[in-house]
Amino acid sequence: MKKDDNCIFCKIVEGKIPAAKIYDNDTVFAFLDIHPVNKGHTLVCPKAHSRNMLEDDDKDLAACIHTIKMVAKGVMKATGATGFNLISNINPSAGQAVFHTHFHIIPRFDDDGLRHWPQKKYTENEIDDLKELIKITLNNLV
Amino acid sequence: MKKDDNCIFCKIVEGKIPAAKIYDNDTVFAFLDIHPVNKGHTLVCPKAHSRNMLEDDDKDLAACIHTIKMVAKGVMKATGATGFNLISNINPSAGQAVFHTHFHIIPRFDDDGLRHWPQKKYTENEIDDLKELIKITLNNLV
Repeated sequence: MKKDDNCIFCKIVEGKIPAAKIYDNDTVFAFLDIHPVNKGHTLVCPKAHSRNMLEDDDKDLAACIHTIKMVAKGVMKATGATGFNLISNINPSAGQAVFHTHFHIIPRFDDDGLRHWPQKKYTENEIDDLKELIKITLNNLV
Repeated sequence: MKKDDNCIFCKIVEGKIPAAKIYDNDTVFAFLDIHPVNKGHTLVCPKAHSRNMLEDDDKDLAACIHTIKMVAKGVMKATGATGFNLISNINPSAGQAVFHTHFHIIPRFDDDGLRHWPQKKYTENEIDDLKELIKITLNNLV
């Protein structure tokens, strides 16, 4: 399994740094974020090192999303949360601060005051032009 | 395949409501959000109807996360984004507004001004107590 000796999450997975582990299996590790947006805020990561989800193989990504679904049910039940946000931040411009793939499960409560980002508007034809550009780009990626 | 005749995303998947589709396959559908947080904001959803990811089967969730990885690369390249946020909002308290599973890909740009939610603090022992409670809850779920 790939690991990076300088990665704090690899050290957590190996047990070299303590963490509030709530679940693990052969592929995936889940623990409480020590700086929670809401209490019960959980991080789910593949045990194998990768910078972010763009580098993970399909097997690890599938294992993560299956674990997220299962762990989120437990986090909600234990905290009394009525919902949750699944979030992953990819690269520094998106707020990624630890460069080992991880997914946030943020328990949510009615009227907890957290607000979503504001929305922008497309000008006329802009959404169709962008759609075509992305489709062409995707075809060239495959 | 399960569908809900009153669901707007089921209608988009079926082609009964137009959308800026950028990708689909047998299982998954991806299109541009008409109210983008940043331009290129994309939604990825399973074609089969479900309220949110807590209801999806493992096969559909794996297909979604694999599609997200692939589509996000195209969205970033086409828009010049340097990162992205993967977000899914589960239940109204978390901001879910359309009740058909979907994942947001929000392209991010250096200094685009979007800020993350503030963090709370655990009091002494609180994180360990919560960890134990969640572990017990998860064991009872399985």
